[in-house]
Amino acid sequence: MPKPVPALPEPAHATVDSMLSRKFGKEVANYFSGSPLNRVSFLRPDHAFLSSALRHPSTAFVLFNELDPLVSSPHSLATVSYSDVKPVIGEDPFASSEEEVIKAYNSSTYLPQIIFLGLDERKGKEGFVYKEHYKGQPWFAVDVTPKESVKDAAEKLVEGMKAKGLDFQKGRMNMDLEAQDAAIYAEARHLLDWNARNPFCAACGYPTLSINAGFKRTCPPKDVAPSIQNPERPPCATRKGISNLCFPRTDPTVIMAVVSADGQRILLGRSKRFPPAWYSTLAGFLEPAESVEEAVRREVWEESGIHLGRVVIHSTQPWPYPANLMIGAIGQAIPGGEEIHLGHDAELEDAKWYTAEEVREALRVGTSGLGEEPGPDYKEGGLRLPPKTAIANQLISAVVNGFASGSPMI
Amino acid sequence: MPKPVPALPEPAHATVDSMLSRKFGKEVANYFSGSPLNRVSFLRPDHAFLSSALRHPSTAFVLFNELDPLVSSPHSLATVSYSDVKPVIGEDPFASSEEEVIKAYNSSTYLPQIIFLGLDERKGKEGFVYKEHYKGQPWFAVDVTPKESVKDAAEKLVEGMKAKGLDFQKGRMNMDLEAQDAAIYAEARHLLDWNARNPFCAACGYPTLSINAGFKRTCPPKDVAPSIQNPERPPCATRKGISNLCFPRTDPTVIMAVVSADGQRILLGRSKRFPPAWYSTLAGFLEPAESVEEAVRREVWEESGIHLGRVVIHSTQPWPYPANLMIGAIGQAIPGGEEIHLGHDAELEDAKWYTAEEVREALRVGTSGLGEEPGPDYKEGGLRLPPKTAIANQLISAVVNGFASGSPMI
Repeated sequence: MPKPVPALPEPAHATVDSMLSRKFGKEVANYFSGSPLNRVSFLRPDHAFLSSALRHPSTAFVLFNELDPLVSSPHSLATVSYSDVKPVIGEDPFASSEEEVIKAYNSSTYLPQIIFLGLDERKGKEGFVYKEHYKGQPWFAVDVTPKESVKDAAEKLVEGMKAKGLDFQKGRMNMDLEAQDAAIYAEARHLLDWNARNPFCAACGYPTLSINAGFKRTCPPKDVAPSIQNPERPPCATRKGISNLCFPRTDPTVIMAVVSADGQRILLGRSKRFPPAWYSTLAGFLEPAESVEEAVRREVWEESGIHLGRVVIHSTQPWPYPANLMIGAIGQAIPGGEEIHLGHDAELEDAKWYTAEEVREALRVGTSGLGEEPGPDYKEGGLRLPPKTAIANQLISAVVNGFASGSPMI
Repeated sequence: MPKPVPALPEPAHATVDSMLSRKFGKEVANYFSGSPLNRVSFLRPDHAFLSSALRHPSTAFVLFNELDPLVSSPHSLATVSYSDVKPVIGEDPFASSEEEVIKAYNSSTYLPQIIFLGLDERKGKEGFVYKEHYKGQPWFAVDVTPKESVKDAAEKLVEGMKAKGLDFQKGRMNMDLEAQDAAIYAEARHLLDWNARNPFCAACGYPTLSINAGFKRTCPPKDVAPSIQNPERPPCATRKGISNLCFPRTDPTVIMAVVSADGQRILLGRSKRFPPAWYSTLAGFLEPAESVEEAVRREVWEESGIHLGRVVIHSTQPWPYPANLMIGAIGQAIPGGEEIHLGHDAELEDAKWYTAEEVREALRVGTSGLGEEPGPDYKEGGLRLPPKTAIANQLISAVVNGFASGSPMI
């Protein structure tokens, strides 16, 4: 089972903290957040930093095969060392500066994707130090999918790991990883997927090159691949100033617990693909030029016909399938706006108002992952809900342990 | 001057509402949010809906020339009618179903970009009704930049508008538009820019086609352009299931007011490009697989060296330059974590702790847009701050009118 999400550092000053607590309750750290790594994002363009971090004996490498992570158990990522991955990534993939790498760009060369994940500062005594301030165990992710020029080396590495009893965890969800490993996995998966999904420039259609240790893709002005007659490429809009196309994409989504105007009931909905009796909160993508609050009101009306007034943001959750930021909110129906109509967007098979009591019982006995069975106390036909690792569960809990109980809402 | 942002519908039920108010204060609707339009997003793939909405006599068209909107004054968008834009967009650009449009795809045909913005339901009596439920004045945006096959028709339209005393508002910022026009402008600009910025498929490098009235780009399997020898294209990953590459991109950013551990001071920073004495909150892009709360802590440490504990989300603001969602937060430094160090990311020229009193005075006399002068009461050398249309101003106000005054923080 996943461990509880890590506790946040608590500020010691009682007055301000209690004022914040009274206003907002405890900060909720959702699953996939709570990474122990300092990303030191400003060091990513510095090849000397990357080169020494990559080759340090304390450095941890997380391996991926087609987006499946190497694990030592369903609860833990496995890590390997520089000497293990060297046959796949080469002696020093960060030996040259980015400027030099861009100048030498050759679209026919396969480079296994490497991501610099961050420094684990809790392990600063193991020796890696850069420019005095930056200490800790460096973490990298490497795509060791056996293909192209690294096919043989990667196959050998994969077989070696299997011989040690390690394996790549198949399947889309890795929700059994303990919380800190889940956060590291999420960072790596999101970036590996973004790089793999975007091999071409959306502005000009030419192949692009990964730089900044996996956090940027650039459209080089030249390509020296032997099959290309003229290495000079036409001008590209992404080379002028800063273009968001060069940076990883994260899609903001809204997910919301909806309460009735009197605060006594909560709305839950189900899609056709859910198992019987399984309900959850409504959710959807935020659209261009919407505030979160507007997106929540729009999605709830489109999917359920309900009109919301006030919307408050509760907490957020990274969701690396493939690239979402879940923004969790609580919305309140306006009086007279509570009638359910599923005919607008027709995404839901059903939506219903539940009492806090029904939902509290379901939180006690009926939670599980989508592909899993509920616990032993669950009675057939009873309401089923998402597990604690889902922000939906946190939002539902916040509402039914707040509004209807008289205690603070979140 | 911009009008104040629109009031939100207030739920009437006193108990729940006062509980939410006590917890969260008033919901803040930031500039660029508060659109009066119902986007009815689920109707965008329905060409019969789009066709009748586009050609209705009540329909409002907002025109853009290279992303500059047609305005009747610095405070108001101008709108034109179907008969005005027909020479540029043609009789009925939505005459065929999307399936037919994709089958007939010809990458050499220039189609001026059209965006369906939504229905203004306050004007439902003017006659447009679709399938009983969907009433109101339809709004569209059209790119009338004189180019390609519409050069002459667009030039004529542009000249006609100028003859009427209307003009396209130059420049990047349109912060003088009244609030509801600003929200409509933001939606249109974000989508026109996204379509213009992404003419090619990032998965396969081939040209793509705008569908869903500007809210989706698809990579057609065939291209019947005369210059192309084989109309059949290779397989593309975006044609399998749902790909986020087909949908508009919105980049989540974090922007935060930072308070000291004792809640008595607020941190402000300045970039080199700001005018003298001008400071603001810190801000930055959320990264893959970060929660908002984590992104706030990371950015503040990277830019200022300050360590934050608790982070709470205040409100959000769409920011269409080009595609941001600003997520406004308040963060509190941990005791002992307040020392400023600008050497990590080196984005700021300066950062300082200010008292609430200094900041309240600056909010009174020293606010203005980046290119504008402060008001008449401003004294040379005094602190300058962003205007009310910026979420930075709202966050700063929330802090200095809360923590230090003893009244509710937001």
